[in-house]
Amino acid sequence: MANPLRFTIHNRCSTTHARVGVIETPHGTFDTPAFMPVGTRGTIKGILPDQIRDTGSQILLNNAYHLMLRPGDELIAQRGGVHKFMRWDDPILTDSGGYQAFSLAAMNDVDDEGVTFKSHIDGAVVHLTPERSIEVQNNLGADIIMAFDDCPPSVDPQGFMESERRRGVNHTNPSKISPPHTENYTQRLQIANERTVRWLERCVAAHRRPDEQALFGIVQGGTDLDLRRSSVESICQTELPGYAIGGVAVGEGPEEIGRVVEFTAPLLPVDKPRYLMGVGYERDIARAVRAGVDMFDCVLPTRNGRNAQAFTPTGTIHLRNAIWQEDDSVIDPTCDCFACQGGFSRAYLRHLFQANEMLGPILASIHNLRHFQRLMLDIRRAIREDDWSLVFQAWPVTRS
Amino acid sequence: MANPLRFTIHNRCSTTHARVGVIETPHGTFDTPAFMPVGTRGTIKGILPDQIRDTGSQILLNNAYHLMLRPGDELIAQRGGVHKFMRWDDPILTDSGGYQAFSLAAMNDVDDEGVTFKSHIDGAVVHLTPERSIEVQNNLGADIIMAFDDCPPSVDPQGFMESERRRGVNHTNPSKISPPHTENYTQRLQIANERTVRWLERCVAAHRRPDEQALFGIVQGGTDLDLRRSSVESICQTELPGYAIGGVAVGEGPEEIGRVVEFTAPLLPVDKPRYLMGVGYERDIARAVRAGVDMFDCVLPTRNGRNAQAFTPTGTIHLRNAIWQEDDSVIDPTCDCFACQGGFSRAYLRHLFQANEMLGPILASIHNLRHFQRLMLDIRRAIREDDWSLVFQAWPVTRS
Repeated sequence: MANPLRFTIHNRCSTTHARVGVIETPHGTFDTPAFMPVGTRGTIKGILPDQIRDTGSQILLNNAYHLMLRPGDELIAQRGGVHKFMRWDDPILTDSGGYQAFSLAAMNDVDDEGVTFKSHIDGAVVHLTPERSIEVQNNLGADIIMAFDDCPPSVDPQGFMESERRRGVNHTNPSKISPPHTENYTQRLQIANERTVRWLERCVAAHRRPDEQALFGIVQGGTDLDLRRSSVESICQTELPGYAIGGVAVGEGPEEIGRVVEFTAPLLPVDKPRYLMGVGYERDIARAVRAGVDMFDCVLPTRNGRNAQAFTPTGTIHLRNAIWQEDDSVIDPTCDCFACQGGFSRAYLRHLFQANEMLGPILASIHNLRHFQRLMLDIRRAIREDDWSLVFQAWPVTRS
Repeated sequence: MANPLRFTIHNRCSTTHARVGVIETPHGTFDTPAFMPVGTRGTIKGILPDQIRDTGSQILLNNAYHLMLRPGDELIAQRGGVHKFMRWDDPILTDSGGYQAFSLAAMNDVDDEGVTFKSHIDGAVVHLTPERSIEVQNNLGADIIMAFDDCPPSVDPQGFMESERRRGVNHTNPSKISPPHTENYTQRLQIANERTVRWLERCVAAHRRPDEQALFGIVQGGTDLDLRRSSVESICQTELPGYAIGGVAVGEGPEEIGRVVEFTAPLLPVDKPRYLMGVGYERDIARAVRAGVDMFDCVLPTRNGRNAQAFTPTGTIHLRNAIWQEDDSVIDPTCDCFACQGGFSRAYLRHLFQANEMLGPILASIHNLRHFQRLMLDIRRAIREDDWSLVFQAWPVTRS
């Protein structure tokens, strides 16, 4: 398959699998390890493209599921693609829509053909197949597109629900997220693995813009390391511009995430970008980078920011808390973000959140995005200088 | 009384009362005629200070009523005042809180002492008097503060309600906005006039920072020109840094607004800034400037922007309208605002509003603020060049 990406590794850590590099795309380059903010509906909520760039973000993620339903992928194609539509000229990655179809839709039914679900917007019945997912992503025109995979929930539906609630996702039909076809989790994971391989072949065959859009394959296997290994082996038989680890952070705790990632990432081709989907907290990212992961996306900085949670190197603070009422300090005096450098105090931010003023979510999101990008800067520096203490000292949250 | 303002008139129109000038304040200067965006709760909703400045706004308005209730005027004073609190170092004007106490509170009772009302936030009973209003405004620390006046509703409560609904204000207790003490409107206006004069004396006596904050008096009189004249005469007996026309745009139509302003403005001292409160549409502003008004404030650009209404020189467009679905043009190709210059299309803006994304209100507000500031730029140029056709040709909306 053609490869519109060029991945150059500049430095490697001597004691871990971590590496620093640059990925060139048709819309410019980004440094790795990279953190990608999530712009679900073709916008990072409340943040203008220039402000996104100012946080140090060099690539962002859009959700194919949301954009195919509204305003529609063909409409966006006619506008010249999602870069032009949202006025972001830098790299974009789209996910396949599968995860949202499984988790957000009011009903869903998965079989070997694909997923059938009701739109969360108007209840219309929608079919999402590997072919349709790639068509949607070809229409959106992102630089990196993702294979349509079967991503089963974690073994414990309650844990999954709890994890999702913490992420702010409200599942309209909780029963649907438990294993739908079998009570045997391993068997469900096996089905997902095999289906994901067959679906990858269909994705590759359906891809109409391989010279412009890099298709990444996705490894599944849940928390079963044998299944992870067999998934890597079968997915990597198809040569692709990059590979992702899916089915992580869907209910299991940080230790399980770490265990799976540390096992799986090193099995992936060493010369291709490795992308850990939907992760995560600072400690998860730092650990995954050491396992050899190059790309991350997560809604934490923006979603939690909108809910008044601000990240600092020593932990999060809640900006609605009454203790900030008369606090003239900024969120993080060591931070160089627009909100902290601009002198917006915790007292003012608390007032904004108490009064439900948009500027609260905006400033908290900007700060949090910069927080994660500063972490990535320090991680890249630590790898270049081969000294992880640079990260662990400046970012106590990564130690836990 | 001391005057912390310096008002210099640079040009006068040869055929109208219009003039161009500069007002110097303790926080810098602004050009007149000036349009002041409204930052009710210490923030222009969704717009950062730098973005406000980029629209050409040089002074903004905060509402004493909202800030005294939350987060509290003393808390803001302890933070160093509202400039520092909201990170806006340029001029600020605060209103007295009276109008909101009359119109927003769940109940209110007005007598010669002041207004008693229930907070719209927590239902607490609050007394607002001339002394307390000035204390609040002294605490907030704006460059220009307003006298606490008795502003009766227009003669027609239905018309007032309709006007308020159009402005997006929902009155919680409609019966309270009809004349509370008498069925005779003229008599009610007379009471308001006399009370406003007595209250002005109390405001002047209560003002603790006359060297730093310019107190403006407010002329009342409704649509009764005799009462307007007598109000001007009595209010202007107190020498103040500026004078405002209040009780306008509270239910009467544009013709009535024009008639009252054209009568009242020229009666005010020619060497002091004249401020027409709460007005308005482009045609109202252009007409009032010709009557000699120097300052305006209105929620239209931001409130209507949040409701997807975008202003153009030929009229407003509604960005949720399906006709923009595939429209790649910007709101106004002649506009130099961030939204139009940034190439954000009507199709994208419609998508943002349909998806209830914050970026819709943000971009529409930025555009609308710049629209009004561009109008003021052209009005100032028309006065300097003594040629009103510059305004009427470029801004068809001002002709109606």
